[in-house]
Amino acid sequence: MTSLGRRVSETADLVTVALDELLPRAEGPEARLTEAMRYAALGPGKRLRPFFALETGRMFELEERPVLRAACALECVHAYSLIHDDLPAMDDDDLRRGRPTVHRAYDEATAILAGDALQAAAFEILAHADTHADAAVRADLVLRLAVAGGARGMCGGQMIDLLGVKDDLGAVARMQRLKTGALIACAFEMPLTMARAGDGERHALLAFAQDLGLAYQIVDDLLDAEGEEALLGKKAGKDAGRGKANYVTLLGAAAARDRLALLTDQTKAHLDPFGRRAEFLRDSVDFVLERRS
Amino acid sequence: MTSLGRRVSETADLVTVALDELLPRAEGPEARLTEAMRYAALGPGKRLRPFFALETGRMFELEERPVLRAACALECVHAYSLIHDDLPAMDDDDLRRGRPTVHRAYDEATAILAGDALQAAAFEILAHADTHADAAVRADLVLRLAVAGGARGMCGGQMIDLLGVKDDLGAVARMQRLKTGALIACAFEMPLTMARAGDGERHALLAFAQDLGLAYQIVDDLLDAEGEEALLGKKAGKDAGRGKANYVTLLGAAAARDRLALLTDQTKAHLDPFGRRAEFLRDSVDFVLERRS
Repeated sequence: MTSLGRRVSETADLVTVALDELLPRAEGPEARLTEAMRYAALGPGKRLRPFFALETGRMFELEERPVLRAACALECVHAYSLIHDDLPAMDDDDLRRGRPTVHRAYDEATAILAGDALQAAAFEILAHADTHADAAVRADLVLRLAVAGGARGMCGGQMIDLLGVKDDLGAVARMQRLKTGALIACAFEMPLTMARAGDGERHALLAFAQDLGLAYQIVDDLLDAEGEEALLGKKAGKDAGRGKANYVTLLGAAAARDRLALLTDQTKAHLDPFGRRAEFLRDSVDFVLERRS
Repeated sequence: MTSLGRRVSETADLVTVALDELLPRAEGPEARLTEAMRYAALGPGKRLRPFFALETGRMFELEERPVLRAACALECVHAYSLIHDDLPAMDDDDLRRGRPTVHRAYDEATAILAGDALQAAAFEILAHADTHADAAVRADLVLRLAVAGGARGMCGGQMIDLLGVKDDLGAVARMQRLKTGALIACAFEMPLTMARAGDGERHALLAFAQDLGLAYQIVDDLLDAEGEEALLGKKAGKDAGRGKANYVTLLGAAAARDRLALLTDQTKAHLDPFGRRAEFLRDSVDFVLERRS
């Protein structure tokens, strides 16, 4: 395993252990709910958003515990969004990372409630005095996560995705910025807030986050098209099959791949001001974009 | 209209106007989501939790705006819980207060997302600097609402209710304390925090909140049994029909009514230390318990 791969995997373990401590135990007559929350949040996952948060914290030499708690809150919101997105009324998925989705392992009502309670848990973690000695920082973290996860962020993006975007690259870009970009940006914003970083560093890292999110989406769209291709022997992917526009359906796979290559260099360039301090974040771009699933 | 009735209705209007300003406008490609959020949160409602919060704020002579914002956040959580409780996978209700429920007026996916985004909006409102000049107060408000609305509060109570409680008054009481009691108590806790109230006043008001919540539930159970009775000409209500225990199925209607009468006096007695300052809260007990729907 590369040194970066080891670091990603160690960070994921750190987050899983911390989440295990922070989430309510499965006790009492409501144990089915807390079990489902733990099933969703403690299951396998790359923990990419927490990785970005913790790496940014390391870059600014922040104490680890506050950033780790913020990263766990972020992961709770990510986990709740996956539970709800998988529901029959949404994307109707039976499997997630090789395991039954929450509504298949439990039932729909429990899945809805587990998502709701995970969202509440995220804000409980952030607002708790253990997260940061300065209450103004805690309130700011809550505000940023609430905005990133709300109607003008993740939920709004999922709504646009459900309605379907047709034939318009601008609309696809807006959907991605809200649906996945807002929460990825939040992974950088939270440690930036704790570090009281200046405007220059903030803008550079948020530009990095934005390009990284976009590149990640293009990879997703390429996998959607190519995965389907290998499986069905035809060009049309899942999105194309549902009449949904994405970067590959709009640009074609070759042009999307060209755009991705340009974007990869541009993404890394945003980290130039940080020099060697950003080594792991810079390397993580290739790591994130070379994924095969 | 009585002076209390006017006060409840004026407070409800105040909250609706404030919510209208605080909730995101229905704009952009995600407008369907923000429309559904507004449909749920701005529709008719008694706004009882906001009333309790605002009356408590008045009792402590707090500035109105911070309490009003906290009351709106509380109402967002209440509204999201109704949207999700009404879903087919939960209570499967088509109507709420004479209007189609959100998943009937829109669709299930939109209803799930509108609930999720309303929960995020609640924490966004609380964490915003406009809510209180002191960030420690804002963080505390977030923490209290997150706990009251989470796995050890409202969501946990709904889980217990879905699983069904049988033949055990203690379990019914615990379910009620979590499902509805926690959010009612939060309506008092938030202004108490802003007032930096002492332990004596805090305990008195929270005991009031707890008994009021219990009394409210007994009225609900009586209405469930009697409403069904009038409609179907038989004694068994909706809960009994589903094999669910509640105060009336366990105690019988007559004993439940006796308990309610005792409880009403006990509830009001908790307000004695506040004297005339608690006039409207004291009167609201009868107002709340004499409802017919």
